[in-house]
Amino acid sequence: MRGKLREKIHTVVFESDTAAGKAFDVALITLILLSVLTVLLESVASLRERYGAALHVLEWTFTIVFTIEYLLRLYCVQRPLAYARSFFGVVDLMACLPMYLNFFIPGAHSLIVVRSLRLLRIFRVFKLSHYFQEGQVIVQALRASRYKILVFLFSILIVVIISGSLMYLVEGPASGFKDIPVSLYWSVVTMTTVGYGDIAPRTPLGQFLASLLMIVGYSIIAVPTGIVTSEFTRLRGITRNACPVCGAEGHDPDALHCKFCGGRL
Amino acid sequence: MRGKLREKIHTVVFESDTAAGKAFDVALITLILLSVLTVLLESVASLRERYGAALHVLEWTFTIVFTIEYLLRLYCVQRPLAYARSFFGVVDLMACLPMYLNFFIPGAHSLIVVRSLRLLRIFRVFKLSHYFQEGQVIVQALRASRYKILVFLFSILIVVIISGSLMYLVEGPASGFKDIPVSLYWSVVTMTTVGYGDIAPRTPLGQFLASLLMIVGYSIIAVPTGIVTSEFTRLRGITRNACPVCGAEGHDPDALHCKFCGGRL
Amino acid sequence: MRGKLREKIHTVVFESDTAAGKAFDVALITLILLSVLTVLLESVASLRERYGAALHVLEWTFTIVFTIEYLLRLYCVQRPLAYARSFFGVVDLMACLPMYLNFFIPGAHSLIVVRSLRLLRIFRVFKLSHYFQEGQVIVQALRASRYKILVFLFSILIVVIISGSLMYLVEGPASGFKDIPVSLYWSVVTMTTVGYGDIAPRTPLGQFLASLLMIVGYSIIAVPTGIVTSEFTRLRGITRNACPVCGAEGHDPDALHCKFCGGRL
Amino acid sequence: MRGKLREKIHTVVFESDTAAGKAFDVALITLILLSVLTVLLESVASLRERYGAALHVLEWTFTIVFTIEYLLRLYCVQRPLAYARSFFGVVDLMACLPMYLNFFIPGAHSLIVVRSLRLLRIFRVFKLSHYFQEGQVIVQALRASRYKILVFLFSILIVVIISGSLMYLVEGPASGFKDIPVSLYWSVVTMTTVGYGDIAPRTPLGQFLASLLMIVGYSIIAVPTGIVTSEFTRLRGITRNACPVCGAEGHDPDALHCKFCGGRL
Repeated sequence: MRGKLREKIHTVVFESDTAAGKAFDVALITLILLSVLTVLLESVASLRERYGAALHVLEWTFTIVFTIEYLLRLYCVQRPLAYARSFFGVVDLMACLPMYLNFFIPGAHSLIVVRSLRLLRIFRVFKLSHYFQEGQVIVQALRASRYKILVFLFSILIVVIISGSLMYLVEGPASGFKDIPVSLYWSVVTMTTVGYGDIAPRTPLGQFLASLLMIVGYSIIAVPTGIVTSEFTRLRGITRNACPVCGAEGHDPDALHCKFCGGRL
Repeated sequence: MRGKLREKIHTVVFESDTAAGKAFDVALITLILLSVLTVLLESVASLRERYGAALHVLEWTFTIVFTIEYLLRLYCVQRPLAYARSFFGVVDLMACLPMYLNFFIPGAHSLIVVRSLRLLRIFRVFKLSHYFQEGQVIVQALRASRYKILVFLFSILIVVIISGSLMYLVEGPASGFKDIPVSLYWSVVTMTTVGYGDIAPRTPLGQFLASLLMIVGYSIIAVPTGIVTSEFTRLRGITRNACPVCGAEGHDPDALHCKFCGGRL
Repeated sequence: MRGKLREKIHTVVFESDTAAGKAFDVALITLILLSVLTVLLESVASLRERYGAALHVLEWTFTIVFTIEYLLRLYCVQRPLAYARSFFGVVDLMACLPMYLNFFIPGAHSLIVVRSLRLLRIFRVFKLSHYFQEGQVIVQALRASRYKILVFLFSILIVVIISGSLMYLVEGPASGFKDIPVSLYWSVVTMTTVGYGDIAPRTPLGQFLASLLMIVGYSIIAVPTGIVTSEFTRLRGITRNACPVCGAEGHDPDALHCKFCGGRL
Repeated sequence: MRGKLREKIHTVVFESDTAAGKAFDVALITLILLSVLTVLLESVASLRERYGAALHVLEWTFTIVFTIEYLLRLYCVQRPLAYARSFFGVVDLMACLPMYLNFFIPGAHSLIVVRSLRLLRIFRVFKLSHYFQEGQVIVQALRASRYKILVFLFSILIVVIISGSLMYLVEGPASGFKDIPVSLYWSVVTMTTVGYGDIAPRTPLGQFLASLLMIVGYSIIAVPTGIVTSEFTRLRGITRNACPVCGAEGHDPDALHCKFCGGRL
């Protein structure tokens, strides 16, 4: 009988096919959204002064609910350790922990916003298979181009180190380049075209070098874009029409024979 | 006879095939441009002081003309409710309303700039079918990639929430991160590479985390670009014609013979 | 005999096949670069104080040389009017004019930097046909997508007008949004992700609306990129291999028959 | 026997197939990373005050080790001059030089960060052939589009010169446009959408012109992206294998049969 209760909880908590399961999931997502909103509002000084106590109570309520939910999940799954180690298991734990950590490290409770990661469940709940599938395509495109992207990031790193140090030498502390780490930060801010302006070159030579760096940063954005785009185009090609003989997919629109079994399409 | 007048008005107001209809449309677009310009100029303090009265009269004149035009449209269409609910119907109404609302909410009249949406008629008036068709392709490409784009925006949202809260913890009010909502705003400003600089990290750790966020923001712009580009490429491919002999698709728009069987297209 | 002199001048001034013509062109480009550099240096206060007189003499020397060159060109071409109206004819004239205009409008001589447009001759001089051809491809790709790009710019214009006016209402003069034209300027600065930070929203609502605008601006950069990229991909496809029967180009790499004459490739 | 020692050193220093060679390379990369880190930390004022002496000793130690390594490399290669002139030869020399230069030019030792270029060896050491191959594809794509990119950069240069000078005339020193070189710097900052905000237009006309420049800058980023993307797409197409039966190219990497004749690939 206890096993049956466990199974029942499992259906409600982990699945969303039944009415109870779906209601549970919708309630959960609403709670997550509300709890993130609470943390946001609690951080605003004027609101904290007025409604501080109420918001604090709310935060604890959400945390206790999420803790109970986490324990329920641990209780009803067949292999608790596997769940605890899975991506969502870790996220679920981290959704409760910061509030308790707050006793030891003041301010840590702001980390509860990690709860927002739990929103990823949204795709499962509403059976948004469309979204999920498309998300898969994006992930696949990024994975297929991971080597190229890493090479790209590594090259950027080297450009950042060299240009940052050069600017430190050229501009010096007077323009805000007070040490090399700050100059590297400036380099990233400039290459990515963010450009805060808190640190900016003032000498003619510094401005000239910065201009070169900007044009480099502006131009090489073409590289990751080119990589990912050609990957998307390829992935689209692969998911095209199926062979009537062997059922294999991925034929070009102009193919006359199946490229796997040779059968006429 | 009244029905005839109505039909006549309809031809002038809604169609642009006749000389009168075209003249009406050109006059309307000129009026829209002038009225938007009036609102712009009226907001400039120095001009308002000198020409305030004249500009105010102009604004009211335009509003009355547009109100009459709106009533005429309502009068001469066969199904007024359908028009009133259509996109252009709502826009036409909103082009008049703010001026009257001004009696109740001071400053509301600036909303008349919604009138600029009426300029979309420009494409219909000048029979800019080319433009219209190309606009369709853009809309189609965006619609086809709507799931991917939503997944992308959702992921950005989660990154913004987590990175913003983290920066609030790391930097604190001293650097301008006075609460989490402001930190989220900073996150968006940074990830989209806008970078105002009104809020900027000052601690080494904050600058390091911000650098990571920038590189993420800079790199993932490749994702929407890749999605939309591959969609454009596909749409172009689809509009190629099929061979009447062998049925193969994928011919260039300038092909005279099928590239597979050599049959005349 | 006079006609012969004219022809000789024409060969030297307009063509770059002969040694004299090439020398003339190289000298001309050097002069253009030096004259642009002179204007740049002359604008720097510290240099103007010290070398003002010398730089002024240099500017006049360049201008007189370019004026003589312009008159020579007018003299030796068969149809002076056609030359004077051509792109390079207008640029050549504008390279001299600002200096003389300076007598009437002080400061106008800075416009001589229009001379830099004359540098476009560089592609002709060094027979950089490679560059020229590639430039053609870029121009062709942009021309083919001109309708889409105009629709895109028109949509941006409407978004800028509406979002700018909305921000003027929400933020008001306190945050720097002193009138609608300035707010439109802010809108462009934000949508294009430039983000100077001289004007920035301060109210929570304004920051929220600005965040939306940023994400829109960040996302829709995918549209022109998608348009131009798919155009480049198509243009590349068109310039592929030629048919051995009719010589037509533009076949796909996998075509078996010429799509124009049906002959086997 | 001396030749044998030389050969042995060569194996250890230049190759990474043997255990000793691999250990040497890993140690080298660790040293490079540590030495770059030392320079970074040494530049921070607070750390320099406390640990200045220790960091200085570390810097010298690394430099001496790298100098010995450089001399060893020179000693054991068969053609020292060829090595000294090669890319890595120059980098290896520049990794030692700045420290010695410091005796003559104070501050020059910061240039040691050029050492970070030595990290490029990382790809060779860990036999990251995947990365290397992908890096090749990126380089190949950039090389194939070099003419287009140069034409693009040249056009940007002319736009920068003309728009910068125009803004100098329109805005003048009051808004920070103190001379034309600074205005050119502003132009680059704006066109690349970096937007520091240290210099920003204040007059309505200046803000209007700046808006146009921003939209141009925002739109033409599509050009390099389009160029590089279509190149990536083409390179992918080229690396598809040809059919041994009919010779047709353009098969997917996972195809087993020719899609045109059905023959086994």
